[in-house]
Amino acid sequence: MDFYKELGKVAPQKTNFATNSSTLLPSQFAEATGRPEKFLALHFANEIWKNNTAEIMKHPGTDQKVFDDVIEFAKAIGMVALPLYKEQPGYNLNSLLVPLLEAAQLLLIKEVADVETIDKTWMVATGAPLGPFAILDVVGINTAYNIGHAKALATGNQEFEEVSQLLKSAYIDKGKLGRATGEGFYKYPNPSFMKPGFLKS
Amino acid sequence: MDFYKELGKVAPQKTNFATNSSTLLPSQFAEATGRPEKFLALHFANEIWKNNTAEIMKHPGTDQKVFDDVIEFAKAIGMVALPLYKEQPGYNLNSLLVPLLEAAQLLLIKEVADVETIDKTWMVATGAPLGPFAILDVVGINTAYNIGHAKALATGNQEFEEVSQLLKSAYIDKGKLGRATGEGFYKYPNPSFMKPGFLKS
Repeated sequence: MDFYKELGKVAPQKTNFATNSSTLLPSQFAEATGRPEKFLALHFANEIWKNNTAEIMKHPGTDQKVFDDVIEFAKAIGMVALPLYKEQPGYNLNSLLVPLLEAAQLLLIKEVADVETIDKTWMVATGAPLGPFAILDVVGINTAYNIGHAKALATGNQEFEEVSQLLKSAYIDKGKLGRATGEGFYKYPNPSFMKPGFLKS
Repeated sequence: MDFYKELGKVAPQKTNFATNSSTLLPSQFAEATGRPEKFLALHFANEIWKNNTAEIMKHPGTDQKVFDDVIEFAKAIGMVALPLYKEQPGYNLNSLLVPLLEAAQLLLIKEVADVETIDKTWMVATGAPLGPFAILDVVGINTAYNIGHAKALATGNQEFEEVSQLLKSAYIDKGKLGRATGEGFYKYPNPSFMKPGFLKS
């Protein structure tokens, strides 16, 4: 809040402000900027050089021309511009991704199937290059733990707490934090799901 | 039930029975077969010549050797064998797919983003060949309507009823049932998401 108040004092009135926050909604800060109509969210993904998505999200007071200008700006810097016309926690991408990742973790905690079978099902059936556990290895298992733990607290759903405890005891406590540490649900750089024949039988 | 009772009388005792039901759990029929230990689910996907997944699911009384034999049988007929060690409504695939498709439909009904932007987000960020609305066109919009309507009735969540009403008024009532009828969320055979440049800006 204070940051935006100070910034609003020193920046020219014509300047648009954009937040890259993954979790906070722009309307929470719009008034503090002193220019709510020139404020919105412009959100990039991890590994921006590979994943060049730019989610551009209005809040109710954002001026339409400012919104359009920032969409053009995103394209001009080589991004795929993905406009959101209303505020949405998690933008589009995490709104889609989190339910898939949660569903995969619930199958695992219920012992319905193992990590490789769940990922193989997704890869063969949808043609996707990564299954949900391979995606979790990219996201990072600490992040998955935090999301699951927060969801368990917010909903009281005990299954999400079980998921978090499994992530902690079987992965995080053993230093298996995902792709960044060389091991998570899979071992890198040659995870089993990349091996020839994985999708064949 | 009567079907399995009659079948159980005429089939040799050594014969294994498998159900291909998408929605009924094998334990609901196991006793009626007269051979619960030789009964399980063997579930194929639509367009089996392209999507050669075989989900093989035990019920609590299925014999381990019968389970293993059916896994080998699935591989022998050219399928990718995907074992489920516990009963799970929707098997693995629909347990993963339905939450993703629901999340996409909720973004649409809340007017956060349009069909193409939601699909583009998914395709660029995950590398998948189809976004959730393109998948819904394959599944069929009647099926999506039935799932949404059932979920609205079961949970009392009004948003799912709004989704169903949108599917009915904007698509089903206009004969846009998905890929099978040439139009759904997209027009086929050349949907916009397949056009060059769709994923570029």
